[in-house]
Amino acid sequence: MAIRDRAQRARDVLERLQGDVDLWVATVQDDGSPYLIPLSFVWDGARILMATPATSITTRNLLRSPRARVALGPTRDVVMIDAEVDVVELDSEPDLAELHASRAGFDARTASERFVLLIATPLRIQAWRTPEELPYRLVMKDGEWLESSRA
Amino acid sequence: MAIRDRAQRARDVLERLQGDVDLWVATVQDDGSPYLIPLSFVWDGARILMATPATSITTRNLLRSPRARVALGPTRDVVMIDAEVDVVELDSEPDLAELHASRAGFDARTASERFVLLIATPLRIQAWRTPEELPYRLVMKDGEWLESSRA
Repeated sequence: MAIRDRAQRARDVLERLQGDVDLWVATVQDDGSPYLIPLSFVWDGARILMATPATSITTRNLLRSPRARVALGPTRDVVMIDAEVDVVELDSEPDLAELHASRAGFDARTASERFVLLIATPLRIQAWRTPEELPYRLVMKDGEWLESSRA
Repeated sequence: MAIRDRAQRARDVLERLQGDVDLWVATVQDDGSPYLIPLSFVWDGARILMATPATSITTRNLLRSPRARVALGPTRDVVMIDAEVDVVELDSEPDLAELHASRAGFDARTASERFVLLIATPLRIQAWRTPEELPYRLVMKDGEWLESSRA
C-alpha cells in the first residue's frame, strides 16, 4: 500500500469527517477509569457535533473534564482526534441543533429524554493506515492544519 | 433487525473475540486526559493478549492504572469490554508470548524495540447493535458470563 503524503492524509481525514456517520469517543470517568462509546456525528466544517442524553456518562465526564479522544474509521485506516468539547443546550445553539437533526438520522430536540449537544473542536489530528505510515501521521497540531509539505 | 437474546449475544461476543484481529483500547493518561489506540489482539480463551512497546503511552498508562475499556467490532455491532490489564515481560510468559506471535501477525519477541505483553481480563462485557438492543446488553458482570436467560 502506498505511503500517503501529509496533504493526501488531510484530504482523506476531511473526507471521513464529511462522510462518516459514527465515531468512537473516549473520555475519563470520575473514578479516573477510561470510558468509551460509539456516537453518531455531523461535521459542520470545523467542529464535530454529537448529541447525547444530558445525564449520560459521556456528558457528565465532559462537563467535569472537557477533553475527548475521538477515533474515526476502521482500525487499519485510523483518524485519531484529540478535541476540546463544549457541552451546550440544544436551545442555545438552534442552528447547530438543526444541522445535527438534518443529518444525524435522529432529532435530539424531540427525544423523550433531554439531550445536549457536544461540540468537539479538534486540537490535534493524526491519520495512518499501516505502521509504515506512522511518520507524518500528524495532520493537525494546536488546532491548525499542518502545511502540506512532507517535511 | 431482530433483537438478540443474551445467549445469542454471548455467542456473538465469543465469535468476535476468537475471530477479530483488532480492537480499540481506551486508557487514561497521567494528566487525566483520555487515550485511545487500535491494537491487534489474540484471545486465549479467557483473556485478551496484546503486545505494545514497553515505553508506549498505553503501556505507561496501564502501569499507572490497570483499567482499560476495549471496543471490538464496528460502531453498529458493538462489543464493549471493561478489563483489568496486567503488563508483563514477554520472557515471563513464554507460552502466551508464543501464542501471541503465532496468531497476531507479528512476533513481538523479535521486534527492534522492547515490547511487553498486555493481558486483559474482562470484568464486564456489553454487546449491542441497535438502540433497541440496549436492554440485555450486559453479557458478563464481575468477570462472570451471565446466565443465558433473558431475564
